[in-house]
Amino acid sequence: MKQLLYNANILTMNDNYDAYENGYLVIQDNVIQELGEGLPAGYHTYNEKYDCGQGILIPGMVNTHTHVGMIPFRSLADDVPNRLERFLFPLENRAMTADLAYASAKYAAAEMQLAGVTTCSDMYYFEDDIASAVKEMGSRAILAETIIKKSPDTTADYETLDYAEYFIQRWLEDDLITPGIAPHAPYTNSTESLQKAAAISHKYNVPIMMHVSEMEHEMVYYAEQYQMSPVAYLDSIGLLNNRFIAAHCIHLNSEDIQILKHNQVGVAHCIGANTKSAKGVAPVKELINQEVNVGLGTDGPSSGNTLDMFTQMRMVANFHKTYNRDRSAFAAQEIVGLATIGGARVLNMADEIGSLEVGKKADICLVETQSVNMFPVFDPYSALVYSANAGNVEAVWINGAQRVLQKQLAQHDLRTIRSDLDSSMSQFKVIVSEL
Amino acid sequence: MKQLLYNANILTMNDNYDAYENGYLVIQDNVIQELGEGLPAGYHTYNEKYDCGQGILIPGMVNTHTHVGMIPFRSLADDVPNRLERFLFPLENRAMTADLAYASAKYAAAEMQLAGVTTCSDMYYFEDDIASAVKEMGSRAILAETIIKKSPDTTADYETLDYAEYFIQRWLEDDLITPGIAPHAPYTNSTESLQKAAAISHKYNVPIMMHVSEMEHEMVYYAEQYQMSPVAYLDSIGLLNNRFIAAHCIHLNSEDIQILKHNQVGVAHCIGANTKSAKGVAPVKELINQEVNVGLGTDGPSSGNTLDMFTQMRMVANFHKTYNRDRSAFAAQEIVGLATIGGARVLNMADEIGSLEVGKKADICLVETQSVNMFPVFDPYSALVYSANAGNVEAVWINGAQRVLQKQLAQHDLRTIRSDLDSSMSQFKVIVSEL
Ligand SMILES: [Zn+2]
Ligand SMILES: [Zn+2]
Repeated sequence: MKQLLYNANILTMNDNYDAYENGYLVIQDNVIQELGEGLPAGYHTYNEKYDCGQGILIPGMVNTHTHVGMIPFRSLADDVPNRLERFLFPLENRAMTADLAYASAKYAAAEMQLAGVTTCSDMYYFEDDIASAVKEMGSRAILAETIIKKSPDTTADYETLDYAEYFIQRWLEDDLITPGIAPHAPYTNSTESLQKAAAISHKYNVPIMMHVSEMEHEMVYYAEQYQMSPVAYLDSIGLLNNRFIAAHCIHLNSEDIQILKHNQVGVAHCIGANTKSAKGVAPVKELINQEVNVGLGTDGPSSGNTLDMFTQMRMVANFHKTYNRDRSAFAAQEIVGLATIGGARVLNMADEIGSLEVGKKADICLVETQSVNMFPVFDPYSALVYSANAGNVEAVWINGAQRVLQKQLAQHDLRTIRSDLDSSMSQFKVIVSEL
Repeated sequence: MKQLLYNANILTMNDNYDAYENGYLVIQDNVIQELGEGLPAGYHTYNEKYDCGQGILIPGMVNTHTHVGMIPFRSLADDVPNRLERFLFPLENRAMTADLAYASAKYAAAEMQLAGVTTCSDMYYFEDDIASAVKEMGSRAILAETIIKKSPDTTADYETLDYAEYFIQRWLEDDLITPGIAPHAPYTNSTESLQKAAAISHKYNVPIMMHVSEMEHEMVYYAEQYQMSPVAYLDSIGLLNNRFIAAHCIHLNSEDIQILKHNQVGVAHCIGANTKSAKGVAPVKELINQEVNVGLGTDGPSSGNTLDMFTQMRMVANFHKTYNRDRSAFAAQEIVGLATIGGARVLNMADEIGSLEVGKKADICLVETQSVNMFPVFDPYSALVYSANAGNVEAVWINGAQRVLQKQLAQHDLRTIRSDLDSSMSQFKVIVSEL
């Protein structure tokens, strides 16, 4: 099937930052077949035509780190110092079920689609159920079962390693879902469980992701125990390679950056979550200067609250300009790059997604410019970073299928997804009231 | 006329932070007559009933510092280092007219209403035209003519002092518009012009506002020239008092904070604009600890880009938690307070607005919780600060009149306001293309 999108301010995010002010784009089945200024030859022969109303057309955004099973935790104990121990772990152990993870993942996929995020990289539990949910919603995703000693979805210590391998085998051939494996963090694993996870990643050639150099106590522990940084420790036990996605990386020294570079590790930068929790600001400029791939991540709904990239782009601008004491650092164009092609590179998916180029998958986001916050538009990159919010996303295509139309889900009813999630949360709410 | 709002999650923002989970509120003419849990006696006798759909009802938000004439500058040269000299000043001098300021102010008032901002404090030029625009839109505002040596709306040096006095006389008795006077900054005025402005403020008992301790060069200049900080200098020439609203105050020492406290100066904290321009983070915790009144400001559309308080609230949380290295600092409830009653105190309007209390003016904002980003709501303050965006504002009342209904302007057509502004911008755009 062929679809024509026209009357769009197209930002391709290709290597030249090519843009078409009054552009068109042709989707053939699930790929971008053609794009340019004006209208294609044979304009009248297209049955499927979409008038973009002079909105800004960008690659579907890439959320490189989230936890789609955690929607139930949103707005719970945000400002509580010891929330991880007091709320998150008890709730995950006592109230997280396959049904709840499934219902949450559907909701999270809906939220991301409505915000223009077409690909996400997730680590959580019950990933087989999460994969069913994400697949049903039609989102592109890397989904990775979390490896941790005790998990809500298994009984024996590190039994998640078995779950993970089973899960990977089941989803390895899927066109939209890429299965992966996700040791929770270095300090919540043994050296052995980390190496087993790496072996599974290697065996199936799938992504491995982890929270790295996020916590103060993590830094202290590795310094005292190993006289190393967590990054150096992971390198020393053979964990790092180009399939590795490192989330956070707040506390890096220059040797760490060289190690990440040398091993072609991608970094999922979660500025909103990192600063909301007062953990700090990752040295992103230094990473980019060393040509380490950096993408943006929301982290989970409990940490970053919303799953949209607009919030993250704005935070990247303000924090890194201030951190570098330079208002011209992290210009809007570069930041839109982090949220699109940068994220695709981190996930090793830049051959398929992350820019609007002929032959790439048709993952596309249309941001309208009719709302009050979107006028005037002297610079569309600026408008995206400094003016837009998730509510400005008008239409979204993933793998050629239109998923968002007039700011609504095209194939699903959000109210049903929400009421299903709400029903699945009854036990969760009871336990919250007891904490 | 009586209006009943019901089925609302009411956050009163009074001194006890009283809240009503299933609350109602009665508006009598332009004031809040009654509020509480459930429904009032005689529920059936109300002709005007508004079902809040379990949304969050808060005081209309207060934007303590903006420039409503500057919508035409939005998304222009955001990341350019010397934009003030290269773009802003030339455009203001060559392209700013009464018509353009008027059209921009209408648009800005519309944008703020649609974002739940019911009161703003503005400094710009052509304030008489701006006042007509804001009045037409029905917003509450302090509007202050800028005092500067050369202005776009006068010809002789410091002739704006005359304009300002004329303007104040014309609007002194208005119920919604409070006229004021606004020396642009200490370093763009002479000691004499500052003192003349203060005398006018004193004579008419109207607000005086200024950009203070915002610029590095400003700090250097006062240190070298006067061996003083700008705050100490302003105090030494008799400028500071409880009518004074100081915008930014990024660079304050502990003596400055004592001076602000002693003179009961209110601070308009513009975290988004300050950090986007890499200027730094004002010591807000220290100000609050010293009981200096602090409110939030967007700054102009050229600096803060959008005029909503949600963006600012989120930035306050993330920056000040990180700055203070404490995730529990600046809890969501306190931040909602800064955006409402805190702002009202800064503007010396807390007797009339800033909280939902009997006898206060009916300035009210309803934030819906049906959108995908607004579920679940364990804590409504968290939902406002960490989840909501301006697009979640469902309804707004100002001085008892409903100004926003179903996310649209109730009495105006945004498309007309936008096309009027666009038409007024033709000369502006020509000059932009020449810069
Ligand atoms: Zn995470
Ligand atoms: Zn300003």
